[in-house]
Amino acid sequence: MHVLIVHAHPEPQSFNAAMTRTAVDTLEANGHTVEVSDLYAMQFNPVAGWHDFPQAADPSFLHYQREQKIAFERQTYAPEIAWEHDKLTRADLVIFQFPVWWRSSPAILKGWFDRVLGVGFAYGAGRVYSTGGLQGKRALLSVTFGGPTSAAEAAEVLQQLQDGVLAFVGFEVLSPFVVGGPRHLTADARQAELQRYHETLEALTCDRTPPGQCHQRAPLVHDALEQA
Amino acid sequence: MHVLIVHAHPEPQSFNAAMTRTAVDTLEANGHTVEVSDLYAMQFNPVAGWHDFPQAADPSFLHYQREQKIAFERQTYAPEIAWEHDKLTRADLVIFQFPVWWRSSPAILKGWFDRVLGVGFAYGAGRVYSTGGLQGKRALLSVTFGGPTSAAEAAEVLQQLQDGVLAFVGFEVLSPFVVGGPRHLTADARQAELQRYHETLEALTCDRTPPGQCHQRAPLVHDALEQA
Repeated sequence: MHVLIVHAHPEPQSFNAAMTRTAVDTLEANGHTVEVSDLYAMQFNPVAGWHDFPQAADPSFLHYQREQKIAFERQTYAPEIAWEHDKLTRADLVIFQFPVWWRSSPAILKGWFDRVLGVGFAYGAGRVYSTGGLQGKRALLSVTFGGPTSAAEAAEVLQQLQDGVLAFVGFEVLSPFVVGGPRHLTADARQAELQRYHETLEALTCDRTPPGQCHQRAPLVHDALEQA
Repeated sequence: MHVLIVHAHPEPQSFNAAMTRTAVDTLEANGHTVEVSDLYAMQFNPVAGWHDFPQAADPSFLHYQREQKIAFERQTYAPEIAWEHDKLTRADLVIFQFPVWWRSSPAILKGWFDRVLGVGFAYGAGRVYSTGGLQGKRALLSVTFGGPTSAAEAAEVLQQLQDGVLAFVGFEVLSPFVVGGPRHLTADARQAELQRYHETLEALTCDRTPPGQCHQRAPLVHDALEQA
């Protein structure tokens, strides 16, 4: 399996960063390949605009969706968008790792959705939900909340993103992995949450792992003192 | 009354832009004052990060909310954030004008929420909902959808933003003004939607208008051929 992790947190020592490193280690130890779009490290620009379309079809009026469709057909997207398309195309599983800010993703990830999941590539001409452009791929939201969060509350907050965005473009959307308020946890409890994430990913990817490797545990080496 | 319009659309000839110009004209004709944060024109950076805190309290680890609280207390926020705080402090009514992208605001506005509605200024230490930092102010979402949208669907899509963000920081949140698929409407129908917005704003601000001016209609001069 090939996995893309889209990571959106400004602090490399954060608990979110520890989660992404845990995922990389776990997946690679189980024989999968992984690449990470670390949006802050990439200085990804989340603002949809003319810069997406170096060869805009109609420079007199920015009709964003129409330009998306044309840029996809003519392969004239800005490289930073085309690269993300390539990463998605390669991936069997996409993990979105982020802290929930204002009941949603940080803006840097919202802009990744705005710019990358464009008409033509991700949906359009009736290609939505089961026939969306990302069909055949799985998506997992792996998120932290600022405080303790019930499964029902998390489901409500993440619903538009899971159903209205990810399922809409064809992903099979997995149950989200939620950590409530890592900053308020003890170091041991944070370590336990990383272990839970490790086990969740092992179970998740087990059925697609080469035989014999499925129950091989990856060591957990990350410092659970890292905070959200 | 003093009104702040936070406007988030990349195309100055868009229907969203026509809506904002309609709002400015209507409000000014009724004796109110208006300022506009045109996020694209301002090249507003939606990415929360170190640049928010020129005098960060802990440069070794970005704890974003803690830095927000300290920057607010010490008045050491980056000027672009402090300016938005000043605009909000002056405003009696805040209108958010944007196209719904992926069941939410464009990233440039999501980042305005992330960066501007910070701990200390907008909420914190128990100051949430009726005691939030923006208490006493009203907020209106004025949005376009890509296609026809029922009131129930719009309410579901906007719920997290209305209840989880705006009401959370203390705003009295008004019923949203929704235009479904302006691009698919005739010029006459678009003009009628602008007129409906004009009348909505007049009714909304009527109770706070100086006597005698309430039913004075502002002329509608904007070209309704403009598209979403």
